[in-house]
Amino acid sequence: MTDKKPFILITNDDGIAAPGIHALVLALREIGDIAVVAPDSEKSAVGHAITLSDPIRVSDFTKNGQWQGYAVSGTPADCVKIAVGALLERRPDLVVSGINLGSNTGINVIYSGTVSAATEGTMLGITSMAVSLATYTNPDFGPAAQFASQLARLVLRHGLPERTLLNVNIPNVPAAEIRGVRITRQGMANFAEEFDKRVDPRQRVYYWMDGKKEEIKAGDDVDDEAIQQNIISITPVKYDLTNYAAREYLQEWIGELRFDE
Amino acid sequence: MTDKKPFILITNDDGIAAPGIHALVLALREIGDIAVVAPDSEKSAVGHAITLSDPIRVSDFTKNGQWQGYAVSGTPADCVKIAVGALLERRPDLVVSGINLGSNTGINVIYSGTVSAATEGTMLGITSMAVSLATYTNPDFGPAAQFASQLARLVLRHGLPERTLLNVNIPNVPAAEIRGVRITRQGMANFAEEFDKRVDPRQRVYYWMDGKKEEIKAGDDVDDEAIQQNIISITPVKYDLTNYAAREYLQEWIGELRFDE
Repeated sequence: MTDKKPFILITNDDGIAAPGIHALVLALREIGDIAVVAPDSEKSAVGHAITLSDPIRVSDFTKNGQWQGYAVSGTPADCVKIAVGALLERRPDLVVSGINLGSNTGINVIYSGTVSAATEGTMLGITSMAVSLATYTNPDFGPAAQFASQLARLVLRHGLPERTLLNVNIPNVPAAEIRGVRITRQGMANFAEEFDKRVDPRQRVYYWMDGKKEEIKAGDDVDDEAIQQNIISITPVKYDLTNYAAREYLQEWIGELRFDE
Repeated sequence: MTDKKPFILITNDDGIAAPGIHALVLALREIGDIAVVAPDSEKSAVGHAITLSDPIRVSDFTKNGQWQGYAVSGTPADCVKIAVGALLERRPDLVVSGINLGSNTGINVIYSGTVSAATEGTMLGITSMAVSLATYTNPDFGPAAQFASQLARLVLRHGLPERTLLNVNIPNVPAAEIRGVRITRQGMANFAEEFDKRVDPRQRVYYWMDGKKEEIKAGDDVDDEAIQQNIISITPVKYDLTNYAAREYLQEWIGELRFDE
């Protein structure tokens, strides 16, 4: 890294008007030049979706006269693609996605729009990280944003392994109560889904999906476990989904297939 | 496996009326009892999205008097969740998603609704596979469906490694021209995105996303490479996204973070 200020693309999945991205912008513009390209509305649980069948609209957005950005009628992954491919005049040095309201840990990482934006950045060859605040009530994004900014500087200095992004989850406690940081792995606890079956005024059936995470005791190195101990969780995430170890097992019996039937 | 017929849940992301799922139903009902729960319309490139903010509607669907299923106003992942959690009276032994029109290989695996349905099945502890036909023009789903059925029987007999699904891509050639099957890895070629900028009749700017895969020469064991050689590609896919090897690298410098500032 030279003395030149880094150029940081900021996005999220809660929408460009959300308080979490505002806190991130205020913290990150102290360490670099920033661009904000984020969804025009909430896009939670969109996973790694991209918009191919609809046009993508882009409008100017101003946050209380404090900063400007682009509001995009697409998913977080769309935002990163269109920012790099069409909107920005130079290539970002870093993509930071967040700060999400609510943790993105365990199985949730698969569904997370916040993480998918950072995955998209990584796929485009840009160092990327996703930042989430582990609460749905009384969020204080200030300490999390300060931490994200500090981590961003470190990541810009050291770089990340190939095809790997950071998934960062921060406990919602005052800075003084943070007990440190831990390099974690993605937890594998399942959701216990519940479907609430209802009938609408026209007598048609519909369902609401709900559920909660199974309480399983995992190791200290699991993302959720760190957060419960007031420790910041950093999981290195990759997008090569191949289970390399499983290939041998398949090789043992795949020869039983016949093509001459 | 006992002599009892296996119970197979069939879904897709092209929608319940698509020809690919019809071919799959006809082939799989020869080897088991089937249930069809699929999106009511095309859901391509939805990634691993789930529907939390909207109600999910379920309606009965009949295919030309040949089979019945449920059409769901949600994503492929929603379909598997609601099938297992609310609609089906017993737990499936196998989830098969497809047959998708178009390959799901390389980077596309991340965006694929077809694969996400199989991932969802795996997350629910059910053996699962995703099946795609590698063409957008003149698809012949017949040979692919016969192959999927043969593979399904093998998978039911042998099982799959924990948290692992099969992502199967089949060349669109007559059965006699299939040169075999290969256990592959997910290709890592990037997309070169292009954004087509247009102005609507009200003078507002919008974009269409388009792009093509970079042509890089990868190894024979890459998914797309197999297909180009008229070989069926089977990639074992897992959903633990942790980059375990990267954890040591992060550990080296993460201690530079300070919490007492």
